[in-house]
Amino acid sequence: MFRYPNGKTYQPTKAVPSIKKKPSYSNRGMTLEDDLNETNLYYLTNSIAVIHKKPTPVQIVQVDYPARSAAVIKEAYFKQSSTTDYNGIYKGRYIDFEAKETKNQTSFPLKNFHEHQIEHMKQVVSQDGICFVIISAFDEVYFLEAEKLFYFWNRQKQNGRKSIRKDELQESAYSISLGYTPRIDYIKIIDQLYFSPS
Amino acid sequence: MFRYPNGKTYQPTKAVPSIKKKPSYSNRGMTLEDDLNETNLYYLTNSIAVIHKKPTPVQIVQVDYPARSAAVIKEAYFKQSSTTDYNGIYKGRYIDFEAKETKNQTSFPLKNFHEHQIEHMKQVVSQDGICFVIISAFDEVYFLEAEKLFYFWNRQKQNGRKSIRKDELQESAYSISLGYTPRIDYIKIIDQLYFSPS
Repeated sequence: MFRYPNGKTYQPTKAVPSIKKKPSYSNRGMTLEDDLNETNLYYLTNSIAVIHKKPTPVQIVQVDYPARSAAVIKEAYFKQSSTTDYNGIYKGRYIDFEAKETKNQTSFPLKNFHEHQIEHMKQVVSQDGICFVIISAFDEVYFLEAEKLFYFWNRQKQNGRKSIRKDELQESAYSISLGYTPRIDYIKIIDQLYFSPS
Repeated sequence: MFRYPNGKTYQPTKAVPSIKKKPSYSNRGMTLEDDLNETNLYYLTNSIAVIHKKPTPVQIVQVDYPARSAAVIKEAYFKQSSTTDYNGIYKGRYIDFEAKETKNQTSFPLKNFHEHQIEHMKQVVSQDGICFVIISAFDEVYFLEAEKLFYFWNRQKQNGRKSIRKDELQESAYSISLGYTPRIDYIKIIDQLYFSPS
């Protein structure tokens, strides 16, 4: 190990791979959120669906109003969301979903959700909304219907396992094919599940 | 006029009416937003509808992570929303609306909206969503269907008037009766317009 005079160790610039923001998601340097935003923009500009990510909930404590410039928020805190992150409309139907990713290689931890979100999803389902979760895990992107998630959530509450096993997810969810535009074409799954003539 | 030795004028404490936050809205010290949030909470807890206000969009610039405490947002700015403030689901239908109030006594100024919001509302209507505006004006609360708003918006764009006249609003919108719980029962109007057997 080499050390500089100031005591810091020598770091070769080339050999060390750069740490990407979300290396778990397909190693493309894009986050799941980025890809979903691009997908929703594609749906919007092509008049397919109107689905937006909700803004991050923030508790604003202090705001400054400097003369002749925009208000500056000087103190604020992140709040826990009481709903899911994405909602909107497709062919008249209400769409509501949450997106989660895990780097875990064997299971999807249920701690990615909190009780409020599950409650919200149950309320949406009872109002006949289309509700699901998009999960990026095991180098795939999955479409898991809310009802299936409720099953795993209830199992956990009855002192069962705190995660969805890889094989369980593969069996109960639909794999979404990844493309260029749109990147995560989850509407295709919605079409099959809710709009296909059976 | 009396003056204190420091030059400040004497202000009688009783005679001057306190300035309420939104004196235009029924003079009850509640904002339209407060009342809509209470109304939506009533709908939610009574399993009538699932409708939430979206968080205020904020552009976060700097976040501090003090040891052993929650992350603090130290610099952020308010962003213009590209959608409306409220959305959700009622009896399977997608609900989307904006709430506005004016203190103006003769007309409702269209500068309360911006082009992005109108565009969003048009997209919602084209996906068969239930889209409208709740307007607090002239000591009443009105339910104005999006299509009617588009008419006044288009008139403005064709160099017409920049507001909706009081009598025009009274004629084209539905008056919402105010109550105790829920305070602004806008679902009643939706029932009449979209769910009544005709």
